[in-house]
Amino acid sequence: MRKVRVWAPKSNSVNIDLGSGRVPMTAQPRGWWSGTLPDGAVDYTFVLDDGVPLPDPRSPHQPYGVHGGSRTVDHAAFPWTDSGWQPAPLDTAIVYELHIGTFTEEGTFEAAIEHIPHLLDLGITHVELMPVAEFPGDWGWGYDGVDLFAPQHAYGGPEGLKRLVNALHAAGLAAILDVVYNHLGPAGNYLGRFGPYFTDRVRTPWGDGVNFSEGGSDEVRGFFIENALMWLGDYHFDGLRLDAVHAITDSSAVHFLEELTSAVAGLENRLGRPLCMIAESDLNDPRLIRPRTRGGYGLSALWSDDFHHALHTVLTGERTGYYSDFGYVSHLAKAIENGYVYTGEYSAFRDRRHGRPLEYGEKSRLLGYIQNHDQIGNRANGERIGQLTGFAHARIGAAMTLLGPFIPLIFQGEEWGAGTPFQYFTNHSDPDLGRAVSNGRRQEFASFGWSPEQVPDPQDPETFRRSKLNWRELNEEPHREMLSWYSRLIRFRREHPELASAAAKVRFDEAQQWLAMERPGIEVICNFGRSPVRVPYGRHRGTVRFSTADGAGADGAVPPAAVLVFENPGSSEGSPRAGELESVPVKK
Amino acid sequence: MRKVRVWAPKSNSVNIDLGSGRVPMTAQPRGWWSGTLPDGAVDYTFVLDDGVPLPDPRSPHQPYGVHGGSRTVDHAAFPWTDSGWQPAPLDTAIVYELHIGTFTEEGTFEAAIEHIPHLLDLGITHVELMPVAEFPGDWGWGYDGVDLFAPQHAYGGPEGLKRLVNALHAAGLAAILDVVYNHLGPAGNYLGRFGPYFTDRVRTPWGDGVNFSEGGSDEVRGFFIENALMWLGDYHFDGLRLDAVHAITDSSAVHFLEELTSAVAGLENRLGRPLCMIAESDLNDPRLIRPRTRGGYGLSALWSDDFHHALHTVLTGERTGYYSDFGYVSHLAKAIENGYVYTGEYSAFRDRRHGRPLEYGEKSRLLGYIQNHDQIGNRANGERIGQLTGFAHARIGAAMTLLGPFIPLIFQGEEWGAGTPFQYFTNHSDPDLGRAVSNGRRQEFASFGWSPEQVPDPQDPETFRRSKLNWRELNEEPHREMLSWYSRLIRFRREHPELASAAAKVRFDEAQQWLAMERPGIEVICNFGRSPVRVPYGRHRGTVRFSTADGAGADGAVPPAAVLVFENPGSSEGSPRAGELESVPVKK
Repeated sequence: MRKVRVWAPKSNSVNIDLGSGRVPMTAQPRGWWSGTLPDGAVDYTFVLDDGVPLPDPRSPHQPYGVHGGSRTVDHAAFPWTDSGWQPAPLDTAIVYELHIGTFTEEGTFEAAIEHIPHLLDLGITHVELMPVAEFPGDWGWGYDGVDLFAPQHAYGGPEGLKRLVNALHAAGLAAILDVVYNHLGPAGNYLGRFGPYFTDRVRTPWGDGVNFSEGGSDEVRGFFIENALMWLGDYHFDGLRLDAVHAITDSSAVHFLEELTSAVAGLENRLGRPLCMIAESDLNDPRLIRPRTRGGYGLSALWSDDFHHALHTVLTGERTGYYSDFGYVSHLAKAIENGYVYTGEYSAFRDRRHGRPLEYGEKSRLLGYIQNHDQIGNRANGERIGQLTGFAHARIGAAMTLLGPFIPLIFQGEEWGAGTPFQYFTNHSDPDLGRAVSNGRRQEFASFGWSPEQVPDPQDPETFRRSKLNWRELNEEPHREMLSWYSRLIRFRREHPELASAAAKVRFDEAQQWLAMERPGIEVICNFGRSPVRVPYGRHRGTVRFSTADGAGADGAVPPAAVLVFENPGSSEGSPRAGELESVPVKK
Repeated sequence: MRKVRVWAPKSNSVNIDLGSGRVPMTAQPRGWWSGTLPDGAVDYTFVLDDGVPLPDPRSPHQPYGVHGGSRTVDHAAFPWTDSGWQPAPLDTAIVYELHIGTFTEEGTFEAAIEHIPHLLDLGITHVELMPVAEFPGDWGWGYDGVDLFAPQHAYGGPEGLKRLVNALHAAGLAAILDVVYNHLGPAGNYLGRFGPYFTDRVRTPWGDGVNFSEGGSDEVRGFFIENALMWLGDYHFDGLRLDAVHAITDSSAVHFLEELTSAVAGLENRLGRPLCMIAESDLNDPRLIRPRTRGGYGLSALWSDDFHHALHTVLTGERTGYYSDFGYVSHLAKAIENGYVYTGEYSAFRDRRHGRPLEYGEKSRLLGYIQNHDQIGNRANGERIGQLTGFAHARIGAAMTLLGPFIPLIFQGEEWGAGTPFQYFTNHSDPDLGRAVSNGRRQEFASFGWSPEQVPDPQDPETFRRSKLNWRELNEEPHREMLSWYSRLIRFRREHPELASAAAKVRFDEAQQWLAMERPGIEVICNFGRSPVRVPYGRHRGTVRFSTADGAGADGAVPPAAVLVFENPGSSEGSPRAGELESVPVKK
C-alpha cells in the first residue's frame, strides 16, 4: 500500500475511486485528506462532494489524457544510470530548445533519444524541452498543460521521459524543462474544484491568474514548488525554464519566485549537483536574477527578448507589433553591451518607460537567441529566420548569437536552417473550444491584416504534421552548409572558454548598416545592408577565422549580407574584459 | 499671463473656458496641451472634445467643490515666515493625527491654528493632517479626494492650509500630510476623461486601481509624483503619509514608490531640510523601508498595525475580523521585540503565511499607536479605546505606546480620552451615491451581526457633528487626569532621548496577563488582567516613576488593570540597547 494525499479544503468528504469501489479518505489538518492505494501501477480518481470522479491534482501519470483517471508511478523503480552526473556550468552552456511532438516523426521521448548523437556532434551542452506536463489532446505546444506532475501520455509518459533524461545524461547533456506556473490550460483544468488555485483578481492573457498571495495561497505555492522539486528530483532534470513569470502576480512579502529558488537551492544542496532556474520575463527587471540576500528572487538566468528583437529587426527590417521598439543597429549595439535595450527608456509599443539597467556581472545571466519557439511560432505561418531573410542573414544571426555575450540558445532545426515551419497547433477534443482556438488565432492576425485563409488552423492536424522536422534535409544543400556553419561556430565557442565572459564592445554605423562586436580574442563584423561597406580596422584586427564571403575582409571591405569573424593575434590579449563594458557609451 | 498645461492624450482639441469664452490650447508632444491664463485669481475649466467643461486635473483650488471650475493660485505670493525651518528628526517624533473637519467646531485650517498651544503643551513634535485634497461635499474623512492638488475649499482652501503650516512651523511643529495615491473617490473624479489614469486590471476595495505600469503610466506616475513635490515644496510640508500602499499595484522594474522616494530625495537636497515619507501598508514587507540601493523602496517609516492589533486585543479582549490573528500577550511581546508579529507565520485571518522579518535597525522605522482614525472610525460606532475598556486600560495603552520602541502616534482627543466618537461620515450630494454609501456601511457591519439602526448613517450630518472634538472636556474629569497622564509620558519621552532607540526586552506571563517591557533606563510593567499579580523583579528595578495605582509596585505587586513605570537607578546604565534586540527569544 502507498499513501496518497490531496488538498481539498472546501470538501466535506473525499473518496478514492479505484473502479472497483470508493474508499473514503481521512481528513487531515488544513484541508488535506489522506488515503492509501494498492502497490503497483493503479488507476484511480478522487471524488469530491459532488460525486464526480476527477484526476489527482498531483497525478503522476494520465494514461487516458486530461479527462481520464490518474495512474500511480513508483519513481524509485526506474533504473537510473546517471549516478555522479554533473552538468556543464550554465555560463558555458549551448542550449538547444526542442519540442518533443515535432522533433521526430514519432513525436515521443523515445524517438528523441535517437537524435542525441546529432546534438553531441553539434556541440550542444543543455537540452531544453518545451513543456511536457499533460495537456489536452495528443499534440500541442504544451503551454496549456493541466496535470502538472504528469508527463504527457502521448509523448511516452513518465517512463519515456525518464529514459530520455537518463540518455541525455549518459551522453553528457544536461536537461532543462519548460514549466508553466502562471496559468493552466482551459481544458481538463480541474484544480479549481479542489481548492482556491486561481483568482479573478489577477488577470493573465490566458484567463484567471494563479492565486499566489490570497487566502489559501500557502498550499497553492506549495503545489508549484513541489512540482519543481519533483522534476528536478524524481526526473533528474538539471534545471527549469519558467514560462512568462511576468504573469505571476504576488503581493506577499516573500515573492513566490524567491520562495521557489530558495527551495530549489535546498534541493541542490541535498542532491549535490547544480540546478538552474531560468525564467522568461518581459519586465527587464534585474531583481529576478539578483541574489535573495540583496532583495532579489535568486533566479539563475533570464531569456532576453531585447537582444532577439534588436537582432531580428536589423536582419529582417520588420517593424510591426513589439518590433516597433527596435530596428536600429544602435539597439543591437546597446543589447550587446548592456544586456537590455530598454533600461528605463520610453517604449512606444508599451507607451511607457520600460526596464532598468543591469548591474555589473548580471549581463552574463541572459540567454541570447535569434530563434525560439515563440519568435517562430507566434508568426501567422511560423516561418524560421532563414525563410524571412535568406540564409545569408540567418548566418549573420547565428554568428552574433553563438559568438555573442549571452548564453546561446537555438531552436530545433535552426542548426540546419530547417525548411519546416513551427506553427501553432492544438488538438482540443471539445469542438467548441477547438473552434474558439481556431477563430482566436485568425482574429489575432486579422488585426495585422491577415485574411483567415492565410492563417493555418491550429486544430488542423496538418498544421501539426507540417511543423515536424524533416531530418532528411540534413543531407541536402543548403542545409548541410548551414549545419556546418553552426557546428563550427559552436565548436569555436566551446574551445574558447573566454567567450563565456559577457565582455563585449561594439562599433557600428547606422547609415551603412554595419556592426563590429569585439569579444575576448575575436571581432565579429557584420554587414546587414545591401551595399558593400568598408569597416575601419579595430584595435586588434587579426586573421579571418570565419567568413560567409570567401576572401573578404583582408582590406576591411565587407560584402552585403556578410559576416566575418577575425581572430585577434595573441588570442584574448588586449580584448575587452567584463570590467570594461559599462564604460563604453552607445553611439546614437 | 501664466502658462497652464494639461495631459489629454486622446483629445483632438482642448479649450480653456474662462466663462467669457473658450480659447484653444496648443498641442504639445506626448499628449500634452498648453495655454495661458490671465494673472491673478482666475476661474477656469478645460473643455475636451465633448464640449463639457471640466476641472483641471491639477487644479490648485476648487472654490465651488469637486464639480465646479478651478481657480488659479499664485504659490509665490504667500508670505511665508518659516525660512530656515528645520523639523525635529523623525526618530524623536511624537506624531499627532488630526482631522481638520472635526478637530474644531469650525472645521477649518484657520480654527486649527488656535489649538497649536495645546499641542505644544502636550509635547507634540509632528502634526499629521488627514487628507485635505478636495473631496466631494463639505465634510468627510478625505480618502475619497479627487482634486489632488487642491486643498479642500470647505477647510479654507490653499490660503488657509498655508497659514496653518506656517503657524505650525512658527511654533516649532512639523507638518505631515496624508495623501491617497492608490485610488480616487467615486464622485467628481474626472481624471479618466483626460487620460488612462485607471485600469480595470488592478482592483482595489474602492474600485479600479491607478494605472502605474500599463500604457500611459509614465504621465500617471508623474502626476502623483508632482503632487507629492507640490505639498512638500509649495505648501512646506515636512513629509507625507501615503495611504494604503498595498493597494498600489505596479509590475514595472522601478516601482512607483521607489521613483517617488527618489524624487522626494532630490527635492530634499534642493530644499536643504529633511522630508519624510511614511506609508501605511498591510504587507509586513521590509522592502518598503529598505534603501533603494538594496532593492528597497526607500520609504522613511511605516505605520505598524501589528503592534496596534496586539495591544488592542490584549486590552479589549476583542477577537473579530483581523483581530482574530492576535489576542495573546505573546503577540504583543513579539511586536515590541521584533516589530512585526507576522514575519512569515500562518495568519488565520488571511488564510496564508504573512510577512517577513525586519532586519537589524528597521524596527525603529515603525510608528506605534493604540488609536488612529481607522482603528476608531472603522468600528460601527467609532468608539475610542477608553469607551471600550475604561480609562485604566486606556492608560496602559498610552504608556506602552508613548514609552515603547516605536515612533508614537496619537489621534486627536486621545490625549484627554475624548468622549466624542470618530464615526464614518460623508457628504455626497448625489443622492444615489449617498444611498449607496449608507447602505454599504450597514451591509459591512451586518456581516458582523449589527442591525441597520445600530450603525450611524454616514450621510446624516449629525454623524459628522457628533464626531467633532468637545474641547470643553479638557476642563472636566476624568479627561483632565488623562491629559495629565499623556503630557507626563510625552514629556518624559522627550526628556530621555535614549527612548528614541527601538531597544526593548520583554518578560511576560500569558496566564497571569502581565508584561514587563524593559527599555533604555526604564521598565514598564503592565497588568492587563482582572487579578493582582506579582511580577518578579527585573534586572534593574529602580523607583516607580509613573503609576496608575498609588503606592503599588514597591514589592513587585501590580493591581489589576494597572501600569507601573520604573526608572532604573543609573538611568540607562545596563539597559537594553538596539544591538541586544534580536537575541531575545519570544516566550510562547
